[in-house]
Amino acid sequence: MPVIPVNTPSATYNVTIAPNLLPTLHSRLRKLNPGKPFRPFIITSPNIWSLWSKPFLASFKEPPTVLFHPAGERHKRMASVESLAQQLSTAGADRDALLLAFGGGVIGDITGFLAAIYMRGIRYVQIPTTLLAQVDSSIGGKTGVNLATGKNLIGSFHHPQAVFADTDLLRTLPPAELRAGLQESIKAGVIYDAKLFRYMEQNAEAILSTKRNADPTPLAKVVAASVRVKAEVVSQDEKESGLRMILNFGHTIGHAIEAATNYKQLLHGEAVAWGSIAALSVAVARNTISEKDANRIANLILRYGPLPTFKATAEKLVSLTSRDKKNRSGIRSFILPTAIGKVEIVRNVTEPELLAATNAMLTLMRQR
Amino acid sequence: MPVIPVNTPSATYNVTIAPNLLPTLHSRLRKLNPGKPFRPFIITSPNIWSLWSKPFLASFKEPPTVLFHPAGERHKRMASVESLAQQLSTAGADRDALLLAFGGGVIGDITGFLAAIYMRGIRYVQIPTTLLAQVDSSIGGKTGVNLATGKNLIGSFHHPQAVFADTDLLRTLPPAELRAGLQESIKAGVIYDAKLFRYMEQNAEAILSTKRNADPTPLAKVVAASVRVKAEVVSQDEKESGLRMILNFGHTIGHAIEAATNYKQLLHGEAVAWGSIAALSVAVARNTISEKDANRIANLILRYGPLPTFKATAEKLVSLTSRDKKNRSGIRSFILPTAIGKVEIVRNVTEPELLAATNAMLTLMRQR
Repeated sequence: MPVIPVNTPSATYNVTIAPNLLPTLHSRLRKLNPGKPFRPFIITSPNIWSLWSKPFLASFKEPPTVLFHPAGERHKRMASVESLAQQLSTAGADRDALLLAFGGGVIGDITGFLAAIYMRGIRYVQIPTTLLAQVDSSIGGKTGVNLATGKNLIGSFHHPQAVFADTDLLRTLPPAELRAGLQESIKAGVIYDAKLFRYMEQNAEAILSTKRNADPTPLAKVVAASVRVKAEVVSQDEKESGLRMILNFGHTIGHAIEAATNYKQLLHGEAVAWGSIAALSVAVARNTISEKDANRIANLILRYGPLPTFKATAEKLVSLTSRDKKNRSGIRSFILPTAIGKVEIVRNVTEPELLAATNAMLTLMRQR
Repeated sequence: MPVIPVNTPSATYNVTIAPNLLPTLHSRLRKLNPGKPFRPFIITSPNIWSLWSKPFLASFKEPPTVLFHPAGERHKRMASVESLAQQLSTAGADRDALLLAFGGGVIGDITGFLAAIYMRGIRYVQIPTTLLAQVDSSIGGKTGVNLATGKNLIGSFHHPQAVFADTDLLRTLPPAELRAGLQESIKAGVIYDAKLFRYMEQNAEAILSTKRNADPTPLAKVVAASVRVKAEVVSQDEKESGLRMILNFGHTIGHAIEAATNYKQLLHGEAVAWGSIAALSVAVARNTISEKDANRIANLILRYGPLPTFKATAEKLVSLTSRDKKNRSGIRSFILPTAIGKVEIVRNVTEPELLAATNAMLTLMRQR
């Protein structure tokens, strides 16, 4: 059972990846705070809860209070946080409360943020149910909600006490969500782990198989390798002053696509996949990467598609990047791949370059 | 010019107290972040701005963007934070933005919280305009907003880079706000500084004088002494794991009074004053304080009144204390004075004790 540590100046915790974790949850949670009061509150979506409440509750003598929050990026807003906080307060949650985020990235981000600001900070645990949440968003302490003007513009750094990634949960994932999550694994390969990238090239069919009795090992291997990338990067640069920025590969244009389509049409991983293709275009035009490597990356991204199409002009998308959180005093940071497994952070990408790359990406999209 | 340091594990900064600070603001702010981009945004109330914008802007070549937020505890809500964040984002604020909280406690609390969560944390400076904000809420990094179920139930610890308390600003303060702020100074004396308490007993008339040409020294002395108490306590216990709790003297019932009157009828300092009288009652009933000292405290609180009356039953008020943030796993922490300048933290105050004390306070209120 892979147990991968995250070690940052402000927190140390483990990501545990294994099948059949849910039925042993209670004792795992108790071990996190030995001798302290145990006052768990579950935050989940109605859909996840209807599928998985039974194994989740199997180890609990007294079922914890359950608060529901709808899935979907458009519900990741301040009003939802306030409503959940109100429900916590009414249910008597105090500073000893322990929030359990049981769901995908939206549930994890909003629960983490709620834990960060409820009574100025309480504990929480991530129990991610989607691939994207297991390999990316549940790890690293970034929490937050969206504004109408952009994604995750409001938030806190607040680490979970632990992450429990039960790979059995991936069995009920819609195929599109599985594929979208795998885009973040491809990203992990591109930015940091050439071996993972190669493994995903060579085992695509086995990894993507959604048959119930398919061998889970290839997918579980990808999950563990992706978590390792995220955990190592975050451990080296908790607050994103340098290295951690590389995790944003594909996210500049990716976030713009999500904003332009009102967070409704594309899954996060799908938007990032298109954003990665645009970023590749910038790298190719600058000659920071060989055409051969660029093609391998683009092909792998498309292999794990299909990526949905959307309507937006390059001008609109580029103008939306001006609100990117990574910008400082108007200067954009941008992540460019230099080889499979290697990237660089540059601060001088110009608007004409971005426009050309975004247009190239849109042309590719229309051709398919 | 008193410059009082705050030294905590997560931040070190100064509180500067002096008349005529506003006209020199620009150079003071520039000195905080030498060599870094200077992108200030002012958060203030329309009323404060109409009175003081001229001296505030006197030292600025380019006037910063001004965002308005209405004063008043009932506007200290998540929706206001979201609206301000949206305005910041539209105005192009990024991680280099510096927020300037120019107003009373509500403006300070909401601006600090906005700074804590905008793009996961940006810098801010407190420029408090009320006595309450100068002596209490601008110092110590507690930021936050209210829920319908209680005060400050949502928030973060996020220290300002500096506090500039211009005592000239107190000249335009409505007399009721001056008196309400002085209740927090009385609290500072009761919990920590017998000398300040005595000074306030002996110089009440001079301190309370609102004549324009009145000697400002007595009031300025009280401000500096109160700030020193707050700064020392916060420096010793940043996150309120122990000592800092003593600042909550009078606040358990005080917060309940504010909630019961929908944050509309009483100023914060007035509610805390009534709450202090109730806490004194508990202390007298328990014999933790001599009747003589208890009377001196109650008399000083009433001397700096008049305290407005309100309608609420003791039962209602005590039931509202069950949501107090200081409670852990249902156990209330309560601050009891043991002498002038000394308090103790107890965890075994019972509901009947609280009811009796609250009834005694309500009886006193009705007699006046």
